[in-house]
Amino acid sequence: MTITIIGLGLIGGSLALSLRQHGLARHLIGVEQSPAHARRALELGLVDEIEPDLAAAVRRADFIVVAVPVDAMIAVLPLVLDATAAHQVVIDVGSTKQALLAAVAGHPRRGRFVAAHPMAGTEHSGPEAAVSGLFEGKTVVLCDVAASDPDAVQLVEKVFQALPMRLLYLDGAAHDLHTAYISHISHITSFALALTVLEKEKEEQQIFDLASGGFESTVRLAKSAPATWVPIFRQNRLNVLDVLDEHLHQLQHLRELLAQEDYDGLTEQIRLANHIRKILP
Amino acid sequence: MTITIIGLGLIGGSLALSLRQHGLARHLIGVEQSPAHARRALELGLVDEIEPDLAAAVRRADFIVVAVPVDAMIAVLPLVLDATAAHQVVIDVGSTKQALLAAVAGHPRRGRFVAAHPMAGTEHSGPEAAVSGLFEGKTVVLCDVAASDPDAVQLVEKVFQALPMRLLYLDGAAHDLHTAYISHISHITSFALALTVLEKEKEEQQIFDLASGGFESTVRLAKSAPATWVPIFRQNRLNVLDVLDEHLHQLQHLRELLAQEDYDGLTEQIRLANHIRKILP
Repeated sequence: MTITIIGLGLIGGSLALSLRQHGLARHLIGVEQSPAHARRALELGLVDEIEPDLAAAVRRADFIVVAVPVDAMIAVLPLVLDATAAHQVVIDVGSTKQALLAAVAGHPRRGRFVAAHPMAGTEHSGPEAAVSGLFEGKTVVLCDVAASDPDAVQLVEKVFQALPMRLLYLDGAAHDLHTAYISHISHITSFALALTVLEKEKEEQQIFDLASGGFESTVRLAKSAPATWVPIFRQNRLNVLDVLDEHLHQLQHLRELLAQEDYDGLTEQIRLANHIRKILP
Repeated sequence: MTITIIGLGLIGGSLALSLRQHGLARHLIGVEQSPAHARRALELGLVDEIEPDLAAAVRRADFIVVAVPVDAMIAVLPLVLDATAAHQVVIDVGSTKQALLAAVAGHPRRGRFVAAHPMAGTEHSGPEAAVSGLFEGKTVVLCDVAASDPDAVQLVEKVFQALPMRLLYLDGAAHDLHTAYISHISHITSFALALTVLEKEKEEQQIFDLASGGFESTVRLAKSAPATWVPIFRQNRLNVLDVLDEHLHQLQHLRELLAQEDYDGLTEQIRLANHIRKILP
């Protein structure tokens, strides 16, 4: 297939590598707003060419991937569908779904679009961040597939299964709720943890010297770009606030147990938390 | 050297492997309260023999490592020093220092003891958790070295440098303050995050299917054992409460920005948090 990828950042770039590696892409066309990122994506061989005209890039492809931040997605996806013909298939790869699904609900080409969220990423961004194998063995969530044409869904399933990824089907509302729990809250806590340590530890060398693997793993996500994450928090605001309130409640409970020197209570809570070991071995 | 390791869990067991691998231990004697752990440590070849008598195990060694949880440490270290002769060297490997240093401050053999904290670990525990290379390239903090005999400090420096580890010198109070920021708070947030998700996501299969690398890395520490961590939080209670209050403040600030839809403010905070990228590349 000829595949057009709009947005050559971490996800778009990594997907380009995977699609080529698994023989799905014969020719890869990139669309990228940043001239520096476009140049770098070509140098890195992520795509075969850069096409400056969005509509032309869409028309020339069999399969179109929109991989821009979720705020830009709302504006770009309708333009992509405007240029899409009946034989083409379009996917997004965004981390939020309800706002996007609403934005294209009445579009004449809605059936050619399949809403997809590959559950994979790193804290890095831009074409330099693209890595091969990012999606291997991970889950991809397909949302509201009943609103897409069956042949489009089948092609998308075939593409992701080839990477290979596990398929999971959710409606947009359930997707946004679960990702708030499983992904978005982790980023909020990591940003807050970084801010805590940066506020408290004025001596940066001390952080570097003392940071152990545990700290590095909890604070890793705090390196993530605001251009990616603020639009996600914005679109999933109510779910994120809900989970954040529960998280604050749990933290305050642990704080109270420690303040009151209730070490049996603290032990009990940690035992409950350890239950995550059975779910994520 | 003949080396005795008291407590054959994650840290004691991993240190046994490293000491042998780097040619520092000719003969390794283990002391372990749990018969199952003692048997497993022998099967895994972590030590050459188990010595049930603490004082005998101390007397037969050149170098003694006390690697028990920090609450047990307060009771065990004075007994170890009681059995220590003038040519022997004793270290601990605990995550808190002030209470321990106070507990042995007046001991006649205080000079033979060097307080050490290798800043390395995993979320696992017990002899099965022992891994070689755990300490390689990491930092070890030596505390209040002026209270130890110079020859004892020199031997300890030589041992850790051989693993190889970077040496850092702090007084006990500074150690406990910095580890609250860099290590202990990460565990609290991770426990709270696991409790949040377990509370909110009653469908465990959903967690498993959707969990991405980001979630796994922030929640990894929530698998850590209460027997290790409750004594650490207890001994470092005031520092941990102080850092936890700052973390709650940062989380509440992010929550308010999102609740008020102040996305410029949220972007600014994430940019500040991104500063951790310069310190931990």
